Amino acid sequence: MEKMKLKMLYSDLKQDIDIIEKELEKALNSSSHLINEASLHLLQAGGKRIRPVFVLISAKFGNYNIDEIKNIAVPLELIHSASLVHDDVIDNSDMRRGRYTVKAQWNNRVAMYTGDYIFARALEYVTSIENQAVHKILAHTMVEICNGEVIQIEDKFRLNQNIKDYFRRIKRKTALLIESSCELGAIVGGAEPEVVRHLKRFGYYVGMSYQIIDDILDFTSTDKQLGKPAGSDLLQGNITLPILLLKDQPKIQKFIAAASNGFVTEDERLEMLEVVRNSDAIKKATVVSNQYLLKALKEVEALPNIPMKKKLRDIALFMGKRKY
Amino acid sequence: MEKMKLKMLYSDLKQDIDIIEKELEKALNSSSHLINEASLHLLQAGGKRIRPVFVLISAKFGNYNIDEIKNIAVPLELIHSASLVHDDVIDNSDMRRGRYTVKAQWNNRVAMYTGDYIFARALEYVTSIENQAVHKILAHTMVEICNGEVIQIEDKFRLNQNIKDYFRRIKRKTALLIESSCELGAIVGGAEPEVVRHLKRFGYYVGMSYQIIDDILDFTSTDKQLGKPAGSDLLQGNITLPILLLKDQPKIQKFIAAASNGFVTEDERLEMLEVVRNSDAIKKATVVSNQYLLKALKEVEALPNIPMKKKLRDIALFMGKRKY
Repeated sequence: MEKMKLKMLYSDLKQDIDIIEKELEKALNSSSHLINEASLHLLQAGGKRIRPVFVLISAKFGNYNIDEIKNIAVPLELIHSASLVHDDVIDNSDMRRGRYTVKAQWNNRVAMYTGDYIFARALEYVTSIENQAVHKILAHTMVEICNGEVIQIEDKFRLNQNIKDYFRRIKRKTALLIESSCELGAIVGGAEPEVVRHLKRFGYYVGMSYQIIDDILDFTSTDKQLGKPAGSDLLQGNITLPILLLKDQPKIQKFIAAASNGFVTEDERLEMLEVVRNSDAIKKATVVSNQYLLKALKEVEALPNIPMKKKLRDIALFMGKRKY
Repeated sequence: MEKMKLKMLYSDLKQDIDIIEKELEKALNSSSHLINEASLHLLQAGGKRIRPVFVLISAKFGNYNIDEIKNIAVPLELIHSASLVHDDVIDNSDMRRGRYTVKAQWNNRVAMYTGDYIFARALEYVTSIENQAVHKILAHTMVEICNGEVIQIEDKFRLNQNIKDYFRRIKRKTALLIESSCELGAIVGGAEPEVVRHLKRFGYYVGMSYQIIDDILDFTSTDKQLGKPAGSDLLQGNITLPILLLKDQPKIQKFIAAASNGFVTEDERLEMLEVVRNSDAIKKATVVSNQYLLKALKEVEALPNIPMKKKLRDIALFMGKRKY
């Protein structure tokens, strides 16, 4: 249902999203049977294609040309996919979006190389763009994403961290790539520098808001809605905003100690979910997410009045208010 | 001793290699303590810096400028280092060059992200070069290296393969990056197109010869010389040229079956080494390596007569004749 709503929001762009979808499939075609299977498995798992959509919409603020803009939309989605494959190894995740992950369906090694391959293909794609600034932004984004992933390992199960540490992680995990999608879509589309700046900031704020919601939903959604057990983040040691707001609670501390030793029963997981759901942490975290969402909407207001402006606001609102 | 000989061969370039060495250290400086430690660990393990050296020498055939040429020499060595870190995960290797690998010193996850980080830093470095052709060659090389690494997984312990499969693997594993080092050094140095072509082919041939020697030494060297147990390649399932030449031998077939199940005793390993060392496979493989070396030297002959021409020949001969 929610996914249908998103499709309706995308309807104006449907034709061009279909082009991106075909290009993604083409991009992952390899001479190795194993790579083909693994990356197709990943691609078919779908996802919301948020990054390409933001690239397309941002380009509409310049001289939109799908044949040009696809060369940046495709690699951005590929970089996202590659980082998911590697993330699942880090987090030891078997399920994502209701399907087995590459590392679960095959193994960690295949996941590592599938990710590497997708990264490399993304780079190959992006070389068709003759704009040095684009390459610099993209390379810097990738360095920061990697930095973030290692920080995430270092911060695992660590309770003596504060909200700044959390923001630092989700910026690198999510906000930066959405920021770059908006910025690069606008640059490749040839938008005015001021418009590029607003879109870049919009992407950052919307990305922060989006990830906070994601971290909330990991506690409040059902296993079925998530396509994996609720509370997975905490089981894997990722201390997200709701937990940071509850870190003085003995029950939470005890749960984290147990999870870090790998000994958590199903009853303990359900009890932890109850504690989080019945606390005020969910509401407080939602307030923080909304603050970012409002900042994003403020950036939208500063953009020129083209039809896509309303669409950008609608998608941001949808993402910031989604229930799962 | 051999390493000293190599240093003497490098002596004319020493000052510039030192600049590269300092840049490599700078390039890997990250805000994450863990990444810093892991990538420094890797860097300090050394290695022959063959790729940067070929970049520098190739650039000498154009308008050599170290400040420009370092921007391609550094990322090429970084890409090589990153692929080693990931290779060690694939091959489950605990030792490299007599030191613990990143995956052994830390774990597979840290190795995966250290590799990703080094890759990303390489890309960031290369964006300072404003030449689209350079980016295309590099991206394509990376795609092919990844392809090769997955092919290597698929071909593991598989005896129904032929020499063509082996050449396909070592091309992607080694020859391509050395080929690209020569080609890109020449391009960034501004050498004539014909000179670029000869250097590119030189790199390919020397790379093939080099990897075949490497695969021979894995059987003929001592554990101490290798910094890891002799025969490691075969233990990990990598079917190299000497083994392909012996694939009809029952003792070898039995050993591979045992290795693929993970049950190999120390006595069995020593027996396998004896079989290989006493066969004519080593001599035959050396002949193949020499054929590539001769092709490489023929490309050198076609190059303009500058002082570096002799150096290029000497280094190729050293690499193609080395004993460990």
